[in-house]
Amino acid sequence: MDRLGSLLSLWLPLLLLLCFSTSISSAVYHPHKIPRLSPIRRTNLRDPDDTLTKASRSEDFKSYFYEQTLDHFNYNPKSYTKFNQSYVINSKFWGGAKSNSPIFAYLGAEAPLAGDIETIGFLPDNAPRFKALLVYIEHRFYGNSVPHGSMEKAMKNKAIRGYFNSAQALADYAEVLMHVKHKFSAKNAPIIVVGGSYGGMLASWFRLKYPHIALGALASSAPVLYFDDITPQNGYDSIVTKDFKEESEHCYETIRKSWSEIDEVASKSNGLSILSKRFKTCAPLSSPSELADYLASMFTTAAQYNAPPMYPVAELCSGIDKAPEGTDILGRIFAGVVSFRKDESCYDVLENTIPSETDIGWQWQTCSEMVMPMGHGSNDTIFPSSPFNLPDFIKGCKSSYGVSPRPHWITTYYGGHDIKLIFQRFGSNIIFSNGLKDPYSSAGVRENLSDSLLAVYTAKGSHCLDILAAQKSDPSWLVAQRKLEVEIIDGWIKQYYADLEIFFFKNKN
Amino acid sequence: MDRLGSLLSLWLPLLLLLCFSTSISSAVYHPHKIPRLSPIRRTNLRDPDDTLTKASRSEDFKSYFYEQTLDHFNYNPKSYTKFNQSYVINSKFWGGAKSNSPIFAYLGAEAPLAGDIETIGFLPDNAPRFKALLVYIEHRFYGNSVPHGSMEKAMKNKAIRGYFNSAQALADYAEVLMHVKHKFSAKNAPIIVVGGSYGGMLASWFRLKYPHIALGALASSAPVLYFDDITPQNGYDSIVTKDFKEESEHCYETIRKSWSEIDEVASKSNGLSILSKRFKTCAPLSSPSELADYLASMFTTAAQYNAPPMYPVAELCSGIDKAPEGTDILGRIFAGVVSFRKDESCYDVLENTIPSETDIGWQWQTCSEMVMPMGHGSNDTIFPSSPFNLPDFIKGCKSSYGVSPRPHWITTYYGGHDIKLIFQRFGSNIIFSNGLKDPYSSAGVRENLSDSLLAVYTAKGSHCLDILAAQKSDPSWLVAQRKLEVEIIDGWIKQYYADLEIFFFKNKN
Repeated sequence: MDRLGSLLSLWLPLLLLLCFSTSISSAVYHPHKIPRLSPIRRTNLRDPDDTLTKASRSEDFKSYFYEQTLDHFNYNPKSYTKFNQSYVINSKFWGGAKSNSPIFAYLGAEAPLAGDIETIGFLPDNAPRFKALLVYIEHRFYGNSVPHGSMEKAMKNKAIRGYFNSAQALADYAEVLMHVKHKFSAKNAPIIVVGGSYGGMLASWFRLKYPHIALGALASSAPVLYFDDITPQNGYDSIVTKDFKEESEHCYETIRKSWSEIDEVASKSNGLSILSKRFKTCAPLSSPSELADYLASMFTTAAQYNAPPMYPVAELCSGIDKAPEGTDILGRIFAGVVSFRKDESCYDVLENTIPSETDIGWQWQTCSEMVMPMGHGSNDTIFPSSPFNLPDFIKGCKSSYGVSPRPHWITTYYGGHDIKLIFQRFGSNIIFSNGLKDPYSSAGVRENLSDSLLAVYTAKGSHCLDILAAQKSDPSWLVAQRKLEVEIIDGWIKQYYADLEIFFFKNKN
Repeated sequence: MDRLGSLLSLWLPLLLLLCFSTSISSAVYHPHKIPRLSPIRRTNLRDPDDTLTKASRSEDFKSYFYEQTLDHFNYNPKSYTKFNQSYVINSKFWGGAKSNSPIFAYLGAEAPLAGDIETIGFLPDNAPRFKALLVYIEHRFYGNSVPHGSMEKAMKNKAIRGYFNSAQALADYAEVLMHVKHKFSAKNAPIIVVGGSYGGMLASWFRLKYPHIALGALASSAPVLYFDDITPQNGYDSIVTKDFKEESEHCYETIRKSWSEIDEVASKSNGLSILSKRFKTCAPLSSPSELADYLASMFTTAAQYNAPPMYPVAELCSGIDKAPEGTDILGRIFAGVVSFRKDESCYDVLENTIPSETDIGWQWQTCSEMVMPMGHGSNDTIFPSSPFNLPDFIKGCKSSYGVSPRPHWITTYYGGHDIKLIFQRFGSNIIFSNGLKDPYSSAGVRENLSDSLLAVYTAKGSHCLDILAAQKSDPSWLVAQRKLEVEIIDGWIKQYYADLEIFFFKNKN
């Protein structure tokens, strides 16, 4: 148990913070070694025929580059280095600067922008109603916005990758948005920024740091409280646990017991070969942790992206629970794999050993400033014990990158402690949306902080669900959540234009 | 006229942004050449016997150093360089963490901290009432807080001086204040930040960017709107003009006409020698601009620091107006010099050619981010025409430092445009205090932005007057201004402690 636990502990702090993607890689890897991955391809999660509107069509999106400043906080001639930052505009619905229309801006997160344009349907879905201009901005160092050639090259350059952080990214967004306003002669058009997961943090922080640029923010599934000790370490895994337990007590018990079973079988002389056979691995297992990581990643991914209409947790548990009577624990777990991953000739436990941009980038980000202490004790979750150990984490990052993480910087720069006390009388116009089945909701803002810093959540929702494209099959609670969010944003925009009229009137007179 | 005008134009954008100091250097110099200075020593401005309280005694202040991060926004191993930042604590009045007491933090500006500790009496004057802990923090690159040996050495190092900017300085303050809270076990003690002039901008920006660290800000004489085109270029000089005109129409007319007189005399074959004699210059003048700069600096300094009980504008005009009948314009101007500077054997027009730290530092700051377009047309002020020319300014900075200023960065990062429209529904707890005789009040916030973003000004006040030590001779309007400010701050603190009680109660239950 201990052995597996300690192995699992290595990847837990690096759980992926991505909204949906057609290819979800779950970033299960050792932070201190070469990344090991167990990505899960889930192209079947969103059915294109199920899309409600046809608002989002690729031919409506036009790509641009902004000549971006590499370092916004330094006046060394070298820091004047520029790089091309990609942003994409959809002006199909734009009512023009004089039509009281807003700009909806999607703030890119830890992935190339292309995938998000496909999936973040909230913007095009609501563009016709608001006559909104849509802007999607890529996060520095991802996709086409890499300062120094390829991402691989940039990440090997110590001096360059130092600029790969959230404060610089927010300043990028500020510059691009002011540029877009200028380009569209839309000085007074209000901007609503939208982001999910890490991008949701960026959206909320952007409204707080740049209120003169963004009128409001929709921060979907943003675990802004997963820093320092604000959220208990086991917040994430407790919700994974709860998700499975609520789905089926039997399923939960089976998973919980499986880790020691794996350990036990592995400890036999031909144990790994037995496990390889029982789990139909494409290549023979070389350690029990390969299997454990693969399974743990599957369970957390199912919980995090437990979206309708498939509800992968139910799918997985149905495999486990409905296995023929007499099937043992590992047999049931394997039935879960088959139910979740569908029937395959073999299961590639180590598939995609080439890390994705997200894997590479997010590992850097967590090893520099985005230190989110995630772990758990021995019996408080579905997983074996795996406490977060900050000194070990720092040591690992130092040996990988030569720099120590700054674990308290996020709360120094953005706050987070006593959030209600601080923000009940400061700031405005942020929606913190969450789905309570999403393990990251454990570190989300789940109560209203003030009249306009609002928590909008659903009991059944999963990660970033509200900002994905509306689908015909969406359940009523999801439709209602999106409707509420749109009404709140509509209120901000109406109030802004009323304020603007008075402002102009007073300035004229 | 044109000649003098263009010479004067060179120093106008660099007018000094300092609260009172026993030695005021007016930073009259060419931004593009080696600094030329015309400092004015005014040790007589504040009379120590006139001090109202004895709260501020040097033995109560203890000096410390904080190991500060050179670059807060970069994770390059090199940026982990540390430097010692000086801060000073007075805990004489501190009621302790459990006494509902606040921390008053003075945010250093473009000068060594030592001078401010002597003069910024607002903190010790009010410490007994609030049982406040007092913290004064030095601004990076000044005084004892220079990252790379001496300031001279640091400023010659292109890589090091790049970190000399406001965003880095605010992050410094954030770290030091969190450190001080920790040191005094005062996690929940509210912090009120106080600053004057440039330091006042920092105080208001600090509350906006770090609301989780500062509960409120007193931003005295902070020209936060002197960026881009928010304030007319001639705002500063228009108020200098108004100050003199309101003091005496005759004085104003005399000064206004003097520039062409200087030009005319200088154009004669022995003109410079005549001028040198008439103005009793210690060394012969080598150009009329030496004299003009000296005089212009005297007029602006008198206006900016037009404090009771002396009221230097009145002092100066009394010299000009009361000169014997028949005295010509230049004779009257000289009488003004004598009245303002007192009777000297000669007047050192080029005194202090060694630039002060403030001169060196502020020139860099204005040539990087603090671009404040100050100038005026041909007949709109007391001075000859001298419009601000951004391309020339940029060219000069580029040739001095090898970098272009970023003239729009301040409004990008902190805002400023349409300030009422933006901040009427965002932020809280800032007092923008101004004295309307202060030329910088032209770019101050002079109307309430919301219920707690407040403009507190006096018609007769000058630069930073409210945060200087209270004196027995203070006029009633100044006493009233300070009283109002203290009441507002008291309200913030009381509300905070009421909020805190509810917060604790809810978190316990």
